Amino acid sequence: MTGGPGATSEAGARAGGVVALVSGGLDSVTLAHLLADRGHAPLHLVSVDYGQRHRRELDDARACAERLGARWDCVDLGSLSGLLGGSALTDDAVEVPDGHYADETMRITVVPNRNAVMLAVAHAIAVAQHAPLVAAAFHAGDHPVYPDCRPEFVDAFRRMQTLATEGFAPADMLVTPFLHLDKAAIVRTGHRLGVPFERTWSCYRGGAHHCGSCGTCVERREAFGLAGVPDPTVYETVAAG
Amino acid sequence: MTGGPGATSEAGARAGGVVALVSGGLDSVTLAHLLADRGHAPLHLVSVDYGQRHRRELDDARACAERLGARWDCVDLGSLSGLLGGSALTDDAVEVPDGHYADETMRITVVPNRNAVMLAVAHAIAVAQHAPLVAAAFHAGDHPVYPDCRPEFVDAFRRMQTLATEGFAPADMLVTPFLHLDKAAIVRTGHRLGVPFERTWSCYRGGAHHCGSCGTCVERREAFGLAGVPDPTVYETVAAG
Repeated sequence: MTGGPGATSEAGARAGGVVALVSGGLDSVTLAHLLADRGHAPLHLVSVDYGQRHRRELDDARACAERLGARWDCVDLGSLSGLLGGSALTDDAVEVPDGHYADETMRITVVPNRNAVMLAVAHAIAVAQHAPLVAAAFHAGDHPVYPDCRPEFVDAFRRMQTLATEGFAPADMLVTPFLHLDKAAIVRTGHRLGVPFERTWSCYRGGAHHCGSCGTCVERREAFGLAGVPDPTVYETVAAG
Repeated sequence: MTGGPGATSEAGARAGGVVALVSGGLDSVTLAHLLADRGHAPLHLVSVDYGQRHRRELDDARACAERLGARWDCVDLGSLSGLLGGSALTDDAVEVPDGHYADETMRITVVPNRNAVMLAVAHAIAVAQHAPLVAAAFHAGDHPVYPDCRPEFVDAFRRMQTLATEGFAPADMLVTPFLHLDKAAIVRTGHRLGVPFERTWSCYRGGAHHCGSCGTCVERREAFGLAGVPDPTVYETVAAG
């Protein structure tokens, strides 16, 4: 139950049930394992189907819940996705760019306001289910491109949420144990916890295997290398350089 | 284009398109008419189906859009509603209470985090559609029971939202022209604008006619009386007192 390297004590500060946003990606699956390791129960994993082309990640989220004996629900926001065209993640007419995850070119992968919507949904579920905590896997590598992953956004969301449910739920429900960690630290944490990384999905293209060249694939490969942890991922292309 | 009685100049401060949350109720339909009167274009009305038993209000939202020549979309959050049991508004096993809208008994009509979810969805649509404004019809009568209608919540939400879409959308998109007005002032505003009040729906019970005794019916009746405006609503019960 100690935090270990690559994990803050934030999520461990309060016991009890937690609703965790788990996409099926490496970060959020590791988050779910960390929460289970810390004894949070009941553990309730929530995924959101927002029409992402890499929706196969949802299979890995469900598998994670089965592995941990957690409840899993997928909230279907499909009726919203038709109104959110223009992101490479949801619009088939927009190509997913190659490059590094932190590049300016990755702006095209931003889904408008995705995290505010998903966090608000997760808090709604937590309040209804009387879970005192909501967890999300934002990390430092997200900050350059995605404003809705940054510490100042997380703080502002937490404050908004406390006011939104005043008298109906605890204050400051949102915990983000990876917020100041890079992805290599998350890989190390997952390795320590025995996360089966081959059952996590990062690739924005959503093909049969990870493409190896889109922003999240480049970031994923790099993180395993920096962490010194064997990467079990099957990529369609060899690493650059 | 002047604000007139019962309307602040907040929504008129910025021109251009607006995404307005319109449930089909008296307040939000009046809001839509006010935005149209002020020349906001394009005007995009968004309703949310969250499994409310009074979903017939959605018909009045669509009719409002047709009347104003506005776009209308209904976002289906039905997959979320199954996870939000326990509110009289969404759970058929929980009875809608009689009484005054501001009574403590109305707590059972709170849908957990409803407004944070709906506002986040509305901002997502606005950002994707390049609309500079989002409008919502919160008013002073909501404040006693619903924490997610209060000025401090609205301020915190606006700040969170500004950070969430920094670099992708303008700051401070959320406008709430009725926030400090009571419902009688909204009735007066709607009367001045020629709102067909018989095409607005308030009743939480969602029957063939307004029941006349649930919290929103009591509040609606009272507002017309206080405003000195004829009430065209057909109620199933006569007014108390």
